[in-house]
Amino acid sequence: MLAQTPPMGWNSWNTFGDNIDEALIRDTIDVFVNEGLRDAGYTYVVIDDLWAADKRVNGRLTWDTAKFPNGIKALSDYAHSQGLKFGMYSCAGTHTCGNQLASYGHEEIDAQTFAEWGVDFLKYDYCHVPAGVNGPMLFRRMGQALRATGRPIVYSICEWGTNKPWEWGAQAGGHMWRTTGDIADSWESILDIGFQRQAELAPYAGPGHWNDPDMLVVGMYGKGNVAQGGCTDAEYRCHFALWCLLAAPLMIGCDVRSMNQTTRDILLNHELIAVNQDPLGRQGYRVGQVDYAYEIAETWAKPLLDGSIAVGMFNLGKRQQRLVSAPWESLGLHPERACQVRDLWTGENLGVFTACFSAHVASHDVTMIKITPIA
Amino acid sequence: MLAQTPPMGWNSWNTFGDNIDEALIRDTIDVFVNEGLRDAGYTYVVIDDLWAADKRVNGRLTWDTAKFPNGIKALSDYAHSQGLKFGMYSCAGTHTCGNQLASYGHEEIDAQTFAEWGVDFLKYDYCHVPAGVNGPMLFRRMGQALRATGRPIVYSICEWGTNKPWEWGAQAGGHMWRTTGDIADSWESILDIGFQRQAELAPYAGPGHWNDPDMLVVGMYGKGNVAQGGCTDAEYRCHFALWCLLAAPLMIGCDVRSMNQTTRDILLNHELIAVNQDPLGRQGYRVGQVDYAYEIAETWAKPLLDGSIAVGMFNLGKRQQRLVSAPWESLGLHPERACQVRDLWTGENLGVFTACFSAHVASHDVTMIKITPIA
Repeated sequence: MLAQTPPMGWNSWNTFGDNIDEALIRDTIDVFVNEGLRDAGYTYVVIDDLWAADKRVNGRLTWDTAKFPNGIKALSDYAHSQGLKFGMYSCAGTHTCGNQLASYGHEEIDAQTFAEWGVDFLKYDYCHVPAGVNGPMLFRRMGQALRATGRPIVYSICEWGTNKPWEWGAQAGGHMWRTTGDIADSWESILDIGFQRQAELAPYAGPGHWNDPDMLVVGMYGKGNVAQGGCTDAEYRCHFALWCLLAAPLMIGCDVRSMNQTTRDILLNHELIAVNQDPLGRQGYRVGQVDYAYEIAETWAKPLLDGSIAVGMFNLGKRQQRLVSAPWESLGLHPERACQVRDLWTGENLGVFTACFSAHVASHDVTMIKITPIA
Repeated sequence: MLAQTPPMGWNSWNTFGDNIDEALIRDTIDVFVNEGLRDAGYTYVVIDDLWAADKRVNGRLTWDTAKFPNGIKALSDYAHSQGLKFGMYSCAGTHTCGNQLASYGHEEIDAQTFAEWGVDFLKYDYCHVPAGVNGPMLFRRMGQALRATGRPIVYSICEWGTNKPWEWGAQAGGHMWRTTGDIADSWESILDIGFQRQAELAPYAGPGHWNDPDMLVVGMYGKGNVAQGGCTDAEYRCHFALWCLLAAPLMIGCDVRSMNQTTRDILLNHELIAVNQDPLGRQGYRVGQVDYAYEIAETWAKPLLDGSIAVGMFNLGKRQQRLVSAPWESLGLHPERACQVRDLWTGENLGVFTACFSAHVASHDVTMIKITPIA
């Protein structure tokens, strides 16, 4: 069974766009192993758009030999030899968003080709769809074609929320579906895509079928393909914490070859990753929201399998420091219930509390805790 | 992990209502073993409302000793000794729907009591909730209390669709939630609850969290607590086939001690059960609907893990015989794709088809097939 917890990995698009080649992918695979990303759970190394040759050969997609002289199968084999999974990209239209050949009318042969290359993950985009063609049906076609190959391939529907894919993505065979347009490396984009656009989507996610608020921009600092000003370390913490609470796929988008220590500390925080990967598989939801003048605070909660609750307390406004609260009653806990509270960023046990936990949170930062009822 | 496929079992309510006792539950457990229900996947034997004593003892719910002289734990132990799981019932209000004591304000102690009794499944109803109290919060409370016991207990939210539990039931810790009021043993009830009220709910279901269109009335033939005219054998086939396509929990509601052969044939059809229990865990959806004059036909499809598609072709109208179709294109299949078609009721392979499969279906009956693309 695929994607029983949200898929984790890396995708070439956010930083590299067109600047992809064999060496980059091999280096990224090596870094995944050497920096502990693989062992932290990041599994799927995915090549996004702009990998293909200009013509089909015997009806089949093939690769740009300038970028990939040894071919895609060799890269896939290398990923597998390193204990990783390998992902590719195509599109439901006649051409990809980068104007390369895509899978419209070739769904079955392309699914077969990807399966033969040892592909474990397919991101399937939505550009250049012929006018009047039913979008969800195109995604259903590719989902059916992938399943019929017999190879377990995670199917990542990249339809940008156009036709509410959360309403049909799972039935189309999707394991995850983008809910919005592309993320950018900016605080405004994180606020829009993450905090504003995901809150209503929690009931559509679960093991094997996840809402996808797009890939991570953690560690990009304004460099790369989707750069747009960049974020502060604290803003990247908010971004990662929310994606963990949302049970969102965690697809790294930065250049992992040059991560700084802060980026490592965020992406490799095992306690936050455990929230994201909790086997109960419930997407977190907003339990509290304060919004007046320049003060904006939100509290999000995610129930975990062991009976504890992960809680993110966000100061999204401009006030430098703000008290943010998580009252027990909002979490389904009796106010008298004694609970252990643990800081998930630091791994520090903060003590036993009843009724409510509150924390001073800096502007554009987050306190991330786990609340565990004491037996 | 609980309820990774829809829970299967039996519940006392539909046939027995208040007429429950220790002997009935033990006999039902024995029939589950001897008639092959257990081995077919029916696991949970659940006592519904009207089991409790009039007073709490030391703050705890206790049983009606006239009905259960040896107590609940002895029954639970007996179920477990026979390789089955054991379920109980309570209610989010002050009293149950049958006016017995319920769990409002006692959620934690009651969850603990059920855990100590070895309960594996809790149906949690919605009667006698104090005015002004937030319903979803009450279900969240019990979900949190159950999880905090540390015992794996399937949490069945019985809120009748009042507050759209599909939008918050999974986040409340529910593994399934009723979507409507109670089913009755009648064709009109199956049409209303099954065919009309479930079609929009498919995206909310998945492994660990299922829509529940209520328990089965197959084999009741107008007898018992929710009797209302009864159904024909063909109507029971439609009911069971649709519940399998919906990935609905399959909770038997008839008296299993006196099933006739038709009831056995329906409830024990392994190929239909396999559709319900398919590990991909996608709820089926309506792919075609014809409704004019007295002719009503519907086609429902459920994608399966192995790349095949289960399809139910229903003649819901009064025309004695009607051709019902499943065109490939509506299923995400290329029209040219050759597919094996198998009759799931009979286990007969019907041959290889392209483009479309059509069948003559009698009034209020169903043809249930599996379509498997040939490699």
